Amino acid sequence: MAAAHMSVRSAFTGLLVALLCLGSAQGGKLLVIPADGSHWTGMKPLVEELGRRGNQVVVVIPEASLSMGPSEHTTTLTFPVPYTKESLTQGLGEELLRLMTTDVSTTVARLKNHWNTMVTLSNVTMITCESMLYNKALMQTLRDYDFDALLTDPFWPVGIIAGAYLDIPSIYIHGFLPCPLDIIATRCPSPVSYAPVRYTHYSHHMSLWERAVNLLMSWLEPAGCSRMYIYADKVASDILRRKTSIVELASNAALWLMRFDFTFDFPKPLMPNMIMVGGMKAGKPKPLPQEVEEFVNGSGEHGFVIFTLGSMVSQMPEKKAHEFFEAFMQIPQRVLWRYTGPVPENAPKNVKLMKWLPQNDLLGHPKVKAFITHGGSHGIYEGICHGVPMVMLPLFGDQPDNAQRMVSRGVAESLSITDVTSDKLLAALNKVINDKSYKANMEKLSAVHNDRPIEPLDLAVFWTEFVMKHKGADHLRPAAHDLNWIQYHSLDVIALLITTALTILLILFKCCVFCFKKCTGRTKRHKNKKE
Amino acid sequence: MAAAHMSVRSAFTGLLVALLCLGSAQGGKLLVIPADGSHWTGMKPLVEELGRRGNQVVVVIPEASLSMGPSEHTTTLTFPVPYTKESLTQGLGEELLRLMTTDVSTTVARLKNHWNTMVTLSNVTMITCESMLYNKALMQTLRDYDFDALLTDPFWPVGIIAGAYLDIPSIYIHGFLPCPLDIIATRCPSPVSYAPVRYTHYSHHMSLWERAVNLLMSWLEPAGCSRMYIYADKVASDILRRKTSIVELASNAALWLMRFDFTFDFPKPLMPNMIMVGGMKAGKPKPLPQEVEEFVNGSGEHGFVIFTLGSMVSQMPEKKAHEFFEAFMQIPQRVLWRYTGPVPENAPKNVKLMKWLPQNDLLGHPKVKAFITHGGSHGIYEGICHGVPMVMLPLFGDQPDNAQRMVSRGVAESLSITDVTSDKLLAALNKVINDKSYKANMEKLSAVHNDRPIEPLDLAVFWTEFVMKHKGADHLRPAAHDLNWIQYHSLDVIALLITTALTILLILFKCCVFCFKKCTGRTKRHKNKKE
Repeated sequence: MAAAHMSVRSAFTGLLVALLCLGSAQGGKLLVIPADGSHWTGMKPLVEELGRRGNQVVVVIPEASLSMGPSEHTTTLTFPVPYTKESLTQGLGEELLRLMTTDVSTTVARLKNHWNTMVTLSNVTMITCESMLYNKALMQTLRDYDFDALLTDPFWPVGIIAGAYLDIPSIYIHGFLPCPLDIIATRCPSPVSYAPVRYTHYSHHMSLWERAVNLLMSWLEPAGCSRMYIYADKVASDILRRKTSIVELASNAALWLMRFDFTFDFPKPLMPNMIMVGGMKAGKPKPLPQEVEEFVNGSGEHGFVIFTLGSMVSQMPEKKAHEFFEAFMQIPQRVLWRYTGPVPENAPKNVKLMKWLPQNDLLGHPKVKAFITHGGSHGIYEGICHGVPMVMLPLFGDQPDNAQRMVSRGVAESLSITDVTSDKLLAALNKVINDKSYKANMEKLSAVHNDRPIEPLDLAVFWTEFVMKHKGADHLRPAAHDLNWIQYHSLDVIALLITTALTILLILFKCCVFCFKKCTGRTKRHKNKKE
Repeated sequence: MAAAHMSVRSAFTGLLVALLCLGSAQGGKLLVIPADGSHWTGMKPLVEELGRRGNQVVVVIPEASLSMGPSEHTTTLTFPVPYTKESLTQGLGEELLRLMTTDVSTTVARLKNHWNTMVTLSNVTMITCESMLYNKALMQTLRDYDFDALLTDPFWPVGIIAGAYLDIPSIYIHGFLPCPLDIIATRCPSPVSYAPVRYTHYSHHMSLWERAVNLLMSWLEPAGCSRMYIYADKVASDILRRKTSIVELASNAALWLMRFDFTFDFPKPLMPNMIMVGGMKAGKPKPLPQEVEEFVNGSGEHGFVIFTLGSMVSQMPEKKAHEFFEAFMQIPQRVLWRYTGPVPENAPKNVKLMKWLPQNDLLGHPKVKAFITHGGSHGIYEGICHGVPMVMLPLFGDQPDNAQRMVSRGVAESLSITDVTSDKLLAALNKVINDKSYKANMEKLSAVHNDRPIEPLDLAVFWTEFVMKHKGADHLRPAAHDLNWIQYHSLDVIALLITTALTILLILFKCCVFCFKKCTGRTKRHKNKKE
């Protein structure tokens, strides 16, 4: 605890220094609480741009993380956590190995597998969450700073709770959430007949059977969300000293910056406070390092293929790697592969193995022919931006759904990482490279994606600054949030209408019976008299 | 018919001349079919800007209209109609007189009144519609021109049908539609619990009773739409030689440019192909004519009030006008009034009557204190843009709903034109001028409205050019349009699930009965044996 205090005190000093440096800035004061891994990669350009434009940006991250660290034009505050970068990396490696070797051919196996990954991730997430929120000195420092707004990735609930604790307007930026928090918390209609539920891997054109599964899954989703945040709800209630939930807190978000657009996602309804900023990271390619440029330029008319499974995966079981080497040996293209595992002696000459790939710059090279990817949203957007057909090897999270979206647009082939063989890989590669329809479809998609009224980064900067300036975005908040579940679904109104209708019917019926009795009584008396 | 042919032939020549002039232009070829009155005023800046940016813009209008005429940077084609500008103006005057003097204190009276106006408008609309669509020479000319897209206001169904006939992508721009064509044709969810149905005059916060009325009205709306377009549906089916409807044709629109934003309208779900371009017309005020500038500058610290009931109304019954003169006499502000009716001898000195008002320039003047308006969307946006509190006197169409929106935001007072008195007017004016909350609320609303990532005019230009360039906006079209009503509402899925559940239950029940019989049979036999 003493160590924690020291760390925070030194961080606090850092914050003060930053304050002095940025004191003359005209912008707002923004707190940033990111999530780890590719989530941070997706958010970093926005955070740096906000700092560059004169805002005082303070990024709060754990001392140990997979990919988070200082960013430009910002101040970084760290807090101690009871894990190390090494333990995180090792844990992730084991999890990925499990993912690459587990059979997920059935829907149930797939969902179970996914759930296990989510539980593993959730455990780390909650340790980080508690480490920050129960760090009183840090939270007091943040409160004292009197931020104008919070920018956070709701993938980690820590930002959601911190925003409520600090009582400042929150802007959420996200690409993937483990459950439909965005749909539930924004009260955004999502018609199950054409909006596929996450993890179903369906397209927006579904068969009767698929629509039935989609409906059933949509009924289960809120329960999944409740289960997912069961512990986070407890922490939130404890920190805020009132009974609350992550869903309830998230419903107060001023804005949701969604890292999507409709060249990637299927068109569906949006709420006014959902801003689409997909493709924020992709952009003009920079020149390649000389060695890489020479390699790809030497590929001749056949061009080259890029292969990476994302920032977190650079290895795979030897047997599986062999299948890839085997396939690459048989194609005329050169291959650039982000791979740090053991290399077989007879590794093909057309393959260049690298520790890290300048992905966007390679995708923007005129000689690129295909992109073998795990289907993370950053890679997909870079691929769309530069119009490169893909072979997808989804691993977990949103990746299988992402792959399905690209396949349904005729710009990609998807393979299962668990049972991939050199033959399957070869067939898929040949298809996306030699069947001209893939390239043609991708070029059309690329043209549409790149033709936009405003760059997504500028849009995200604008709306973040808007919330800082106007202390929220109340004019975009639907009155749906002021209604309870019964009112929202008009169940009270329907009950009122049915009761009114039944009462009227009852009165009419009673009147008829009364009249009938009167009439028949009179007739009887009449008859009796006659008799 | 011969006259029609001549007119079209000369128009065709005009078109060719335009072609030659614009032959070198880099932009697309855009057909524009506007609607009359304020609809044209709202669309004109976009049409002119599209022409200015190098697109070949051809505007097709009837020979006689209320407000339509040539616009800059465009080519205008006219077609003959069996009415004159004078007959239109006279008809409108009579209709407005009826509106100003009819008591609409009850909901039923209001709806009946509204329906009558709509029927009158619809009759003129359909005459125009037929005059254009059955003008074979004109339609052939338009077909020959091979336009890239059509820009039309769906308030007049003529554009909707012409787009389908010419088989070109359509962009709809609208501020008001007589029935919820936009909601039905785009399949946009509109939750009745917080999205008030048009003509209810409700805000987004409704009581139980209001939500009940809203629900009932929402059930009636599709029927209202069918009834409204009953004749247009016939014309469309005849022109296109297949059974169709306006709603079906409108569902094929590539984009809907909505002249709204959420400082005016209540926040609710949107579809991806709905683009909000509210406030396109309002902008920086230009200097006033010297005479007007002197008048308003002479108003001292009290400032001045602007009074106009829109481009179509510059007169009113003498008795009613008297109430206004009477009220204006009692305020310290000067008044600029667009009025061409008879002036009483003792007309107050602080009132300046004008045939036409530079509305936006006056609203942008620092001395303006209040804006008395009928509540047309253009005036409202100009008022919001410059932060001027309002007194609203809605006449018809969307105006009563518009007034309610402004009142619910605490920036306006609303009065009924049918029973307005000098006392009521005085009270309302004093309230919006002297109660500082109106100005404060309006300034907040204005700050939010004016703070936007891209100007609405630029946004509208961008999306129109996008549709021309990409031959539509298919990536924004939800798959909802490929489902029938039963599929969209998942009724077939629910039927399937119920059938499956019942079948399983039945089988289980039969199994149980079978087992029970077996068991009891065996026990009986067992007993019998024992006995």
